[in-house]
Amino acid sequence: MKKNEKHTKFVLTDELISKILDFIKSSDDNSILETFSNYHHADIAEIIEELNSEEATYIIKLLDSEKTSDVLMELDDDYREKILKNLSIKEIAEEVEELDSDDATDIISELPEEKQKKVISKIIDAEHKADIKELLKYDEDSAGGLMAKELIKVNENWTVTRCVKEMRSQASEVTRVHSVYVIDNDDILLGRLSLKDLLVANPKTKIRSIYKKNVDHVYDTDPADSVASTMQKYDLGAIPVVNKKKKLLGRITIDDIVDLIKEEAEEDYQLAAGILQDVDVDDTIFELTKARLPWLIVGLIGGIGAAFVMVGFDEILIQNEILFYFTPLIAAMAGNVGVQSSAIIVQGLANDDIRGSINNRLFKETLLSILNGVILAILLFLFIYFWKGDTNIALALSVALVAVVIVAGIIGTFIPLFLNKRGIDPAIATGPFITTSNDIFGILIYFMVAKLILQI
Amino acid sequence: MKKNEKHTKFVLTDELISKILDFIKSSDDNSILETFSNYHHADIAEIIEELNSEEATYIIKLLDSEKTSDVLMELDDDYREKILKNLSIKEIAEEVEELDSDDATDIISELPEEKQKKVISKIIDAEHKADIKELLKYDEDSAGGLMAKELIKVNENWTVTRCVKEMRSQASEVTRVHSVYVIDNDDILLGRLSLKDLLVANPKTKIRSIYKKNVDHVYDTDPADSVASTMQKYDLGAIPVVNKKKKLLGRITIDDIVDLIKEEAEEDYQLAAGILQDVDVDDTIFELTKARLPWLIVGLIGGIGAAFVMVGFDEILIQNEILFYFTPLIAAMAGNVGVQSSAIIVQGLANDDIRGSINNRLFKETLLSILNGVILAILLFLFIYFWKGDTNIALALSVALVAVVIVAGIIGTFIPLFLNKRGIDPAIATGPFITTSNDIFGILIYFMVAKLILQI
Repeated sequence: MKKNEKHTKFVLTDELISKILDFIKSSDDNSILETFSNYHHADIAEIIEELNSEEATYIIKLLDSEKTSDVLMELDDDYREKILKNLSIKEIAEEVEELDSDDATDIISELPEEKQKKVISKIIDAEHKADIKELLKYDEDSAGGLMAKELIKVNENWTVTRCVKEMRSQASEVTRVHSVYVIDNDDILLGRLSLKDLLVANPKTKIRSIYKKNVDHVYDTDPADSVASTMQKYDLGAIPVVNKKKKLLGRITIDDIVDLIKEEAEEDYQLAAGILQDVDVDDTIFELTKARLPWLIVGLIGGIGAAFVMVGFDEILIQNEILFYFTPLIAAMAGNVGVQSSAIIVQGLANDDIRGSINNRLFKETLLSILNGVILAILLFLFIYFWKGDTNIALALSVALVAVVIVAGIIGTFIPLFLNKRGIDPAIATGPFITTSNDIFGILIYFMVAKLILQI
Repeated sequence: MKKNEKHTKFVLTDELISKILDFIKSSDDNSILETFSNYHHADIAEIIEELNSEEATYIIKLLDSEKTSDVLMELDDDYREKILKNLSIKEIAEEVEELDSDDATDIISELPEEKQKKVISKIIDAEHKADIKELLKYDEDSAGGLMAKELIKVNENWTVTRCVKEMRSQASEVTRVHSVYVIDNDDILLGRLSLKDLLVANPKTKIRSIYKKNVDHVYDTDPADSVASTMQKYDLGAIPVVNKKKKLLGRITIDDIVDLIKEEAEEDYQLAAGILQDVDVDDTIFELTKARLPWLIVGLIGGIGAAFVMVGFDEILIQNEILFYFTPLIAAMAGNVGVQSSAIIVQGLANDDIRGSINNRLFKETLLSILNGVILAILLFLFIYFWKGDTNIALALSVALVAVVIVAGIIGTFIPLFLNKRGIDPAIATGPFITTSNDIFGILIYFMVAKLILQI
């Protein structure tokens, strides 16, 4: 039910923000309405996010809910929640009334349970109300949780003329046409009608004889990420959602999938960087701490573990203190190799690129680690030889480095593959987890190999 | 010029691959043709990628180029290059003939220069040939490099009846309609025509009176990532591309942008993991080494730097060897904090979320680091106190940890912001670069603070 809004290239400036703040301070409603009348809802959302939630609520209450409903959808979840708290049940219902069923359901599902029911009861459009109630039943990470009820469907028994007439009335309810789905009398999805074919067909032709069969579709219970990969693989702008009996329930459009793909990529990146919750730069220090501290504590425990390992080798310290100077190097190399190899595996798993056995992957990573390890070891050997002139020490350090690189590569390859087999998101394994375990193993292997070679 | 193909849920199995390999070995062309007739081009690409390039070429030559042209577009760049080497100029021209102008241009631009000209000269469709020549002039990372020439445009002076007739003939050349653009007699973009409005309008109405003005558009020289963020922000399925005079040149569709967004996110993730080139799990060991070794060498140099720092503090070693056991912990914490803070900044920059001064960001990160650092330091203090019973050592280590965490957070925040200001991709700063520099600084600060507190 979105309207098309014109908008010119928008740039958010400090001047604009302070102008709007002045308008709010002086309750100059006309100037606010005039300023915002030129902007697209995505631009308004950018402006709103620079205000505090009281100022934002003032704007939201002032503008038409036809516009603000779309603005609300563009806001960050946390921020939207704050604004919704400031709105009355009736005001929320007005916003929800303007949204497509999928967005409306998203907003309502963010409310506390008792508030949900009250808002739903205030929705005037009976069909919209029923749609939202139906969509609320789905898991938000399923196709059913992503789909909107708004779509264009035509009956196989209609003529082209009737079809165009019915499409006209349905189109007023749908933001973007994308595809026209063909159903039978029981609402079973049969196929889709291309606009091209509709344009060229004789007005009296039955839809039955011109539609395309075997349209791509997903089931309402399919997980969201499999919907995303299907739509991406087959370059689909929209995909219909059906139940087990192939009854047409709704459709998912590519713009929702774009957001999903981006969120997933960002989440993987954050996990790899040791950030546990979805946060962004503008979150509070408390939220950022909650997201960052857990992994740092894991790192701390790992560091204490490494210290214990080193205590166990303290007789080396007395004879060959130089070995101790290189523990940070060994730990860093173990960590870097582990992160590199796990990142490649995690990405391969995310893109469904990994086939064949775990053993094959481990074998390849071992060969790769030997190659990288030997090159690095030669560099380290030459450096220590020219610095200290001690062949034994240089040899011990270099051989230890090769061993550490190999083990780090194997751990980095094995852990994400193993977690994936167990049904755990492998992205959680990359970053600090691999780094920390590789630190400890790396230092342990390093001292063991050095001890062996130097015969201490 | 793509055709719609039906396809059922496709699962790639080892049985299928070995069946196809048998067909190739026995040159059983009929069975190959029959097997592949059921599959979507994206599925065929998945199968092809499991074969070696000779086997793949055999299949590509055998199947109709109407199908194989789309298969080629789905393949990994490196692999496509290998197959194209096996095809004759004429065979490549046949594939190119079937593709939309943007894909055709992509394929041709991957060929060696002399081969490019030969292939273009073999293209039969004159308009297609001219389109490709025009598109080849654009930088591949610009809007012009992304756009396709195929689109549906109507003149403002046409009636609805004429418009529908013209759309019919144009539609046969266009894969997906998306939007209908309205132009004047000089091909200047005026706006767009909604299919809804076209459906409800009187057949004699002029387009001039029903089209929507102020359509979103980008300029041919706009960078690709700004096109991506515009389309994402405004939820656009397609966007028209114009030149400086607003002459309509082509259009970019969301499926190309989805690929771009995914590639960019993957690249950032790989950079953060210390992988310098775009690689995937199935690349050769040599390619993987080229991508991974440079960062490992940086890490090696960093580790040698850290060793030098420790040599400078060797008088501490004699009195307080316990401090040395905690260098890996200090290095790890400095690395982890640096990666966390830089990841948040890099992601914020990528999403255009960062406004305000660098100083404000550094101030916030400092507060955050103090909070995290103090909590971690208390844990470390308690541990060392109960382990060794030495308050001085425990205090020295804990205070040093707070200092290291603060400096690491500041470095992790400052470097990406600084690089971004200088126009360098900040993603390159995360991962090993931050880790390595933080290792050295962390250990230096650690020993300096410990020395001060223990008054060595």
